[in-house]
Amino acid sequence: MISAEEQKQVLSLVRQTKDLILKEMKNEEVMVKGAANYVTNVDLAVQNFLKEELGKAFPDIALIAEEKENTGLSEEGTYWILDPIDGTANLILDFRMSAVALGLYEKGEIVFGAVFNPFTDELFHAAKGEGAYLNGNAIHASSTEHFGDAVISYGSTPYTKSEAKNLFPIFYNIFMKCGDFRRTGSAELDMCYVACGREHGYLERDLKPWDYSAGTIIVREAGGVVRTWKGEEPTYLTNGDILACAPQFEEILLKELAGEKKS
Amino acid sequence: MISAEEQKQVLSLVRQTKDLILKEMKNEEVMVKGAANYVTNVDLAVQNFLKEELGKAFPDIALIAEEKENTGLSEEGTYWILDPIDGTANLILDFRMSAVALGLYEKGEIVFGAVFNPFTDELFHAAKGEGAYLNGNAIHASSTEHFGDAVISYGSTPYTKSEAKNLFPIFYNIFMKCGDFRRTGSAELDMCYVACGREHGYLERDLKPWDYSAGTIIVREAGGVVRTWKGEEPTYLTNGDILACAPQFEEILLKELAGEKKS
Repeated sequence: MISAEEQKQVLSLVRQTKDLILKEMKNEEVMVKGAANYVTNVDLAVQNFLKEELGKAFPDIALIAEEKENTGLSEEGTYWILDPIDGTANLILDFRMSAVALGLYEKGEIVFGAVFNPFTDELFHAAKGEGAYLNGNAIHASSTEHFGDAVISYGSTPYTKSEAKNLFPIFYNIFMKCGDFRRTGSAELDMCYVACGREHGYLERDLKPWDYSAGTIIVREAGGVVRTWKGEEPTYLTNGDILACAPQFEEILLKELAGEKKS
Repeated sequence: MISAEEQKQVLSLVRQTKDLILKEMKNEEVMVKGAANYVTNVDLAVQNFLKEELGKAFPDIALIAEEKENTGLSEEGTYWILDPIDGTANLILDFRMSAVALGLYEKGEIVFGAVFNPFTDELFHAAKGEGAYLNGNAIHASSTEHFGDAVISYGSTPYTKSEAKNLFPIFYNIFMKCGDFRRTGSAELDMCYVACGREHGYLERDLKPWDYSAGTIIVREAGGVVRTWKGEEPTYLTNGDILACAPQFEEILLKELAGEKKS
């Protein structure tokens, strides 16, 4: 755990990434240099900044991040888990649904998380036992009663298209029972949207640790549920099939997701 | 057609709806009064305001809108076509993807359109032959070459779930060929997102006139294409199955959508 003062310091660092992200985001430049270059530049700029500043403030806590090799991890360790930009395709498209996501892993659980969308200036955060917040205001998962009213966001696993054959029938079954679908393209923002009631559930296969760590504590502190598709506790240091939802929809969603195993 | 001065006046009226929408949007109140009431109040407040102000400024142009009966329409007429709130489910969820959409129909075509998202302060507009704009800056449909890189947004026709049996196989086929999916919950914003390159295509069945009229001229003036799923010109005064996309993806998307007819 980190103290209230330390949390404040970390949240301030996360907010400071906004300038790094927007500075690189001159559309003409992206066109000239190529989108891939642009994303790499933003990813590295955010990662280097946070790695350096967190290293100064917390010299004993190592960083696990998308843009680096992560080896020799111990389940008993304490780590920052960082996605410098979650939603990179959205960043390239100027879709304005991308986020910096930073979680703090401690001996098998996530005890602090911050997710910041620089385009909407929305900073979600939570610390274990202290509630979840959006720009400092407490947030809560939805109390909507009926699954027929629920808005479910799904990850389409776009980089492994072969999965779609198994996934689409599950999505279809869920769609027929819920209210409607959303698809945002940012896992961490989807989890935060579950935490504040903008969505009632979110599900995606094969998420990397930095795609769901910060979001997990935010969902849980908002009264929501985070599980693997098998209903287990995620590991955080390895990839996971993740479900985040309002607690009243856990059972029905896990049941639908279990249908996948048949294939 | 309306003059540059008149366009400015209309855009100013559309922007003024922001206060009406946000004034009604006190989350606690929504909880107490019920979400349906809240949406009805906002819908009516926006519609009444624009109906009155447009009536003063353009006494000869009648208004077609979601929250009123629309009878005795003539294809040779001139009409405002208004959706006071496109994306009402999003409004209830505070999803921040809702818009006021106003199109001007003139003898079989849309000659002016404005789409305003009060949560992001993004105002899209276009007039025939004059280009498309986001907050005054020219926008253009994407020049992305390969369909494998294309981000396609779809409408799920959530109020007619029986359609899903026919639609999901089409969506699956498109997903396997394109880059990825999005689902925003606002038809008019999806069309504007195609117009400014945030998406490469958008498709939805059975849209009402106010769901796609304003967006149509914005897409076209941005260099994009709007067609029915059969490749025809939409009628604007009746419901339509609508495709909006960057021109290089028209052929492949129409071919996939034609698959639907088999069922």
